[in-house]
Formats: sequence, C-alpha cells, structure tokens
Amino acid sequence: MKIIIVGATGTMGKYLTKALRNEHDVVTAATKEADVQIDITSTVSIENMYKQVGPFDALISTAGPTYVGPWSRMTDKEFRKGVEGKMMGQINLVLIGQHYINPKGSFALITGALTHEPQLNFANASAANGAVEGFVRAAAIELGNGIRINAVSPTVIEDSPQYFPYFPGDVPVTMQQLEFGFRKAIFGAGTGQVIKPY
Amino acid sequence: MKIIIVGATGTMGKYLTKALRNEHDVVTAATKEADVQIDITSTVSIENMYKQVGPFDALISTAGPTYVGPWSRMTDKEFRKGVEGKMMGQINLVLIGQHYINPKGSFALITGALTHEPQLNFANASAANGAVEGFVRAAAIELGNGIRINAVSPTVIEDSPQYFPYFPGDVPVTMQQLEFGFRKAIFGAGTGQVIKPY
Ligand SMILES: NC(=O)c1ccc[n+]([C@@H]2O[C@H](COP(=O)([O-])OP(=O)(O)OC[C@H]3O[C@@H](n4cnc5c(N)ncnc54)[C@H](OP(=O)(O)O)[C@@H]3O)[C@@H](O)[C@H]2O)c1
Ligand SMILES: NC(=O)c1ccc[n+]([C@@H]2O[C@H](COP(=O)([O-])OP(=O)(O)OC[C@H]3O[C@@H](n4cnc5c(N)ncnc54)[C@H](OP(=O)(O)O)[C@@H]3O)[C@@H](O)[C@H]2O)c1
Repeated sequence: MKIIIVGATGTMGKYLTKALRNEHDVVTAATKEADVQIDITSTVSIENMYKQVGPFDALISTAGPTYVGPWSRMTDKEFRKGVEGKMMGQINLVLIGQHYINPKGSFALITGALTHEPQLNFANASAANGAVEGFVRAAAIELGNGIRINAVSPTVIEDSPQYFPYFPGDVPVTMQQLEFGFRKAIFGAGTGQVIKPY
Repeated sequence: MKIIIVGATGTMGKYLTKALRNEHDVVTAATKEADVQIDITSTVSIENMYKQVGPFDALISTAGPTYVGPWSRMTDKEFRKGVEGKMMGQINLVLIGQHYINPKGSFALITGALTHEPQLNFANASAANGAVEGFVRAAAIELGNGIRINAVSPTVIEDSPQYFPYFPGDVPVTMQQLEFGFRKAIFGAGTGQVIKPY
C-alpha cells in the first residue's frame, strides 16, 4: 500500500513512519526534511504534494498546529493558528486529496481527547478537533468510490512528556496504542469513526 | 435581565425575541433591521455592537451562516462561509464579549444535531458545529467572574419546513422546545453543556 504520512517528522509521525515502512510504501511529508515538502495551510501546497506523489492508497495526517497559551491572550488572531492549521489544513487535505486517492483508499486525521475533555490553555485545539471530527462524520457519507475517512483521538501521548503537566490525571496513550489506532483507521473497514486508541 | 439576541431577525431569533421580551430587556441584533447592526464575520463590528449596547447579562446567538450545497462543489472557498460565520463569528462573540458581559452573565450559542448526525449537503455545518461545541466546553473552564457558556443543539426546527426534506426521519424540534433549550442555557446554572432540547 502506498501511504502518505503528513507530519512524518513529528513525534507521532516519526513513530508511525518507522512502524509502517517495513510493510508499506511510505511517503513522508512535512514542511521540511521529508520526502515531500508541504504546508497544509496552503491549498496550492497541498495540491502540489498530491501531484508530486501521484495516486496513493492512504493518507495519515499527524500535522495539526494549534495555539497553546493562556486564555487571557486568546483573540481571533491566535485562534487562527488552529483554524488554518489543524482544522482547515486537514480538511483541505481531504477536499483536495479525494481527487488523487485510489478507489477504496482512506484518510486518517488526527484530533485528540481535548474535543470532549478540555484542558486550560488548549481551547484552540478543542475547537479544531471538534471541527475535524464533525467533518469526518459528514465526509464519510459524502465521499465516493469506497473512500473512507476516520479520525484518531488519543489523550496525551507517551513520547510527549513535556505535555504531561497540562493533562493532570490523563493516562498517556502509548506509542503502540497510537499506532494501532491508525492501523484500525487505515486497514479496518470503518468510516466516519473517531477512534480512541485507549 | 438585559439579553442581546444576535440573529434576532431570523426564524429562531424572531421566536425567541417574542418569547423573552415581555420578561426581559431584549436588544435585537442582526446585519439589518434590528436594534443594533452587527456582522459577526467582522471583529470590528462585534466590538462596535458591544460598545453600543453596554453591559449586559446574557447573549443568545442564533446567527450561524454556513455553506449548504453538494459535496462536489465543496472546496476551501465554500467551506469558509461556515468557518467565518457560524464558527469564528460565534467564537469571536465570546472572546470579545467576555470583556463586556456582567459577572455571572452567560453566553448561549447555536449549533445543531449535524455535529453528530451528518446529512448530505451539510458538511460545513457539521464542522462549524463541532468547533463551536469543542470551544464551548473549553471556554467553560476558562471564563472568569462566574460567566457561563453553553450551546443549544436542536434537530431541524418546526418553523423551517423548507429543510425537512434534508433531514429524513428527524422529528422536528418545536419552537417551544427550542425556547426551553435557550432558557436552560441562560437561566440554568450549567456551563460547558451542549443542550439538546428534545
Ligand atoms: N503530542 C501529544 O501528546 C498529542 C496528543 C493528542 C493529540 N495531539 C495532536 O497530534 C498532532 C501531532 O502531534 P505531535 O506531538 O506529533 O506534533 P509535532 O511533534 O509538533 O509534529 C508536528 C508535525 O507536523 C508537521 N507540521 C507542522 N505544521 C505543518 C504545516 N503547516 N504543514 C505541514 N506539516 C506541518 C511538522 O513538520 P515540520 O516540523 O516540518 O513543520 C511535524 O512533522 C497535533 O495536532 C496535536 O495537537 C498530540
Ligand atoms: N432552521 C433550522 O431548522 C435549524 C436547525 C438546527 C440548527 N440551525 C442553525 O440555527 C441557526 C439559525 O437558524 P435560522 O433558521 O434561525 O436562520 P435564519 O432564519 O437564516 O436567520 C439567521 C439570522 O442570523 C443573522 N445573520 C446572518 N448572517 C449574519 C452575520 N454575518 N452577522 C450577523 N447576523 C447574521 C440574520 O440576520 P440578517 O438577515 O440581518 O443577515 C438572521 O437574523 C443557523 O446557524 C442554523 O445552522 C437551524
């Protein structure tokens, strides 16, 4: 299977790339230092990535920039980071990618537990996650050619200890659980699901 | 109580204005033909509305433009209608309004069943609703001074028969149920809730 991993150079992306590339033809994508360069906040850049990569079977996205910071500094301007990044970046990966993906292909987007379990400083991610999850359910009934779409929604992950203090009491999702979440999304038969790999 | 209703000239807004204005000091707001003019897609216009109205106790929003149309025509461009309208419009009503609302005041935003029950043609609303609901839960743990925030999420409403064909099998929410949903949001003690008035 030819699998594009957008965000392949990040904490999640590195692990998933390593886990999948022995079995599959993995194309890594990120803003820098990857097989293909892409900026998901630009529809032109997304279109260019798909043209460069050609037909593919699955797309995993672990690219989802959001604004993290105190509520007192949260204005429209800061909020746009998650709107353009994690939300519209991922939504446009699908709206554009549906024209390049093979029949029966599938999209697996990243969200997170913040959708339903907010934490201080992360309101932008809660909103972006909620948008992506609403979109995933809606796109699932619209996409043609047997194309599927799911979201993977972990709590804080094992390899991101720098975030543990922001998620008091959350049992970190192991990297293997995260990998299994994406495996379910890509290799399972479900669509329109928000997969909680814990 | 001084209550601002944004979207007061619409199907929901007209009913809620009538229902609440005997008991409360209701200020109607919409792009035209209301006590105060506002375009929620502009942060300047939102700021102007709050300056004009002065301190208030509750804000109801039933203004939430989204793109409704076939998936085949859905691109980033169409998607922005809901992003700027129902999503960022309502989020900015809160991010800005928190500096004008009285202590213990409350915000009640509009979402809808499409968050979790998608229908063809409405993916933009599903995403915008999901964003607003994620934001409401996050804002509830951030807002100071006892300020509350909730969303009201009806299915298709009784007074919008033009939408019935798009919501096969959905029992329409009566206008009174909708009113009670907003009453619960504004006069109840809950916060961070998505109220389903059915
Ligand atoms: N870490 C956690 O504990 C956790 C838990 C739940 C959910 N999440 C969510 O999971 C996602 C990934 O988390 P992570 O910890 O793996 O993040 P990360 O280590 O910061 O990695 C982010 C990846 O996305 C890429 N990226 C960033 N902006 C991009 C853009 N505009 N266009 C294209 N690629 C871009 C980065 O590439 P470049 O470096 O080249 O820009 C990098 O490969 C985030 O959305 C986060 O909210 C994380
Ligand atoms: N109708 C339903 O069955 C139903 C069911 C579930 C959820 N909803 C949601 O409920 C919301 C309201 O529905 P509705 O049927 O009452 O809508 P509507 O009849 O179209 O009324 C919309 C109201 O919002 C105002 N508005 C529109 N764009 C605005 C902007 N940019 N700035 C400020 N005000 C603006 C309109 O004022 P002007 O005319 O002056 O622009 C009008 O007062 C929508 O978000 C819809 O998605 C509706």
